[in-house]
Amino acid sequence: MTVTLEPLFLGIDGGGTHCRVRLTDHSGAIIGNGLAGSANVYSNPYGTLESIMQAVDQALEQAGLDCQAMPRIYAGIGLAGGAMPAAVDFLQQWQHPFAKARFVSDSHIACLGAHAGADGSILIIGTGISGWSIVEGRTRSWSGWGFPFADTGSGAWLGLRLYQLTIDALDGIIPHTEMTLAMAADYQHRAENMVQAFQQASPAQMAELAVRVVEHAALEDRHALTIVAEQQKIIRSLLTSMHTFNHQPIALLGGLSEFVSSHLTEEFKQLLTGTAGDPLSGALLLASEGVTI
Amino acid sequence: MTVTLEPLFLGIDGGGTHCRVRLTDHSGAIIGNGLAGSANVYSNPYGTLESIMQAVDQALEQAGLDCQAMPRIYAGIGLAGGAMPAAVDFLQQWQHPFAKARFVSDSHIACLGAHAGADGSILIIGTGISGWSIVEGRTRSWSGWGFPFADTGSGAWLGLRLYQLTIDALDGIIPHTEMTLAMAADYQHRAENMVQAFQQASPAQMAELAVRVVEHAALEDRHALTIVAEQQKIIRSLLTSMHTFNHQPIALLGGLSEFVSSHLTEEFKQLLTGTAGDPLSGALLLASEGVTI
Repeated sequence: MTVTLEPLFLGIDGGGTHCRVRLTDHSGAIIGNGLAGSANVYSNPYGTLESIMQAVDQALEQAGLDCQAMPRIYAGIGLAGGAMPAAVDFLQQWQHPFAKARFVSDSHIACLGAHAGADGSILIIGTGISGWSIVEGRTRSWSGWGFPFADTGSGAWLGLRLYQLTIDALDGIIPHTEMTLAMAADYQHRAENMVQAFQQASPAQMAELAVRVVEHAALEDRHALTIVAEQQKIIRSLLTSMHTFNHQPIALLGGLSEFVSSHLTEEFKQLLTGTAGDPLSGALLLASEGVTI
Repeated sequence: MTVTLEPLFLGIDGGGTHCRVRLTDHSGAIIGNGLAGSANVYSNPYGTLESIMQAVDQALEQAGLDCQAMPRIYAGIGLAGGAMPAAVDFLQQWQHPFAKARFVSDSHIACLGAHAGADGSILIIGTGISGWSIVEGRTRSWSGWGFPFADTGSGAWLGLRLYQLTIDALDGIIPHTEMTLAMAADYQHRAENMVQAFQQASPAQMAELAVRVVEHAALEDRHALTIVAEQQKIIRSLLTSMHTFNHQPIALLGGLSEFVSSHLTEEFKQLLTGTAGDPLSGALLLASEGVTI
């Protein structure tokens, strides 16, 4: 066995639910992957460090390496909540074991990945919604301020609108459609049951309801189409603001991106572009930036 | 001193913040008042009973009476949360000390009071929003399912819309107006500060922001007028549904009733009527109903 000091590159994508890592050798070949729990550095800073190291250990093991390889690792790390000032302070103080580590938000690596490191914007439409843009190293964000008070247009918000319209139908303020009837039936057609079931609902729980809106929109359910129209209005505002700002191509990401783009008019579809790579590929670009081999 | 067994009438209005009582003699003359803390029987059943008895003791003391008068008291009791099935069960099992007690929701006594016991409807527009109707003993409610997921059109919702529009302006999705600029200035023009300040905001805290919307609407601030237009649409739906249901006159109650009615068109103003009495007068009507002196 020859001892090598060639650099290794590590991409880390830390989200609210999972922390994913990808390890490559100096040629870019993937030699290990890792998966651990939640890595929202704003809401759970120490838990995030644990998740990161757990996923990194997995990836090293897969690569047939151990912690002695740490000083060879150049890490690009994108974390949920990583753009919040308190999180930046926290991460700067971390005595990490790598040769070098660069910290950004999870949106930032998603944007780098989507555009293969070129300038561009992304709009992530999943449980939450947020836009991110990188132009000549400068970044800017749109929305993403959290459900229930913000994140209008997101999956959680789609679910909220279904919830609200179903209650309105039960109150007799608007007529039922198939969609609201199906939702009401799950709660014995009683608004108080719905209120109780969703009193402490998380964004993820609300977003689960979005599936119903997507399904009934395909069936041209009148209330579903109302919600789609409201969502499209929000998305158009976001896309317009993003395009006006920098005229860069925008990649739509997240579980609802296909649904949303299928309803866009040609005018707005023209602002969009496909996705070159995933967030981990973006994290690896960040890791290898400026490293000479 | 002559011993009298004439009946006494007790009206109780239990809300989320205060429990108010009013005691009258058989002629209807007020002989005592009482005030205690929270009386939401759904969220705090035992605390509600404590608040009731504390306020009743005050009223008895003012009237120069003590607990020996309890068997002479006919009570009409309206409580926040009093229409929820769990609350009805709880109250039916209470071994209350009165000659007789009738339990309804706080909306019910407000409706009885507003129409002096006659058939009619009310729409309460305060921190929350809810409609109530009594026609020939039958009742029906509209909205009132709680902020943040419901209660659109309420004071808390007005505050939420200001919050959302301010964040949108900070994100550059919409232009600022005087109203959003004033709000943003309180948080150093940083959306993250606003998100942090309102992360756990209660309906009451959100409703405090409504004052700003009211003030800026008077100055014809463009975003304030947008919010007013959205609210008016919600109120029109509610009033239409209530009117279509029973063609009864509707009294607007609550801190925002004047603001809302000042923006209504003549068509909808015609559905409205003035208020005959307050919720405690409604509770006293309930207390004395069917009691022969």
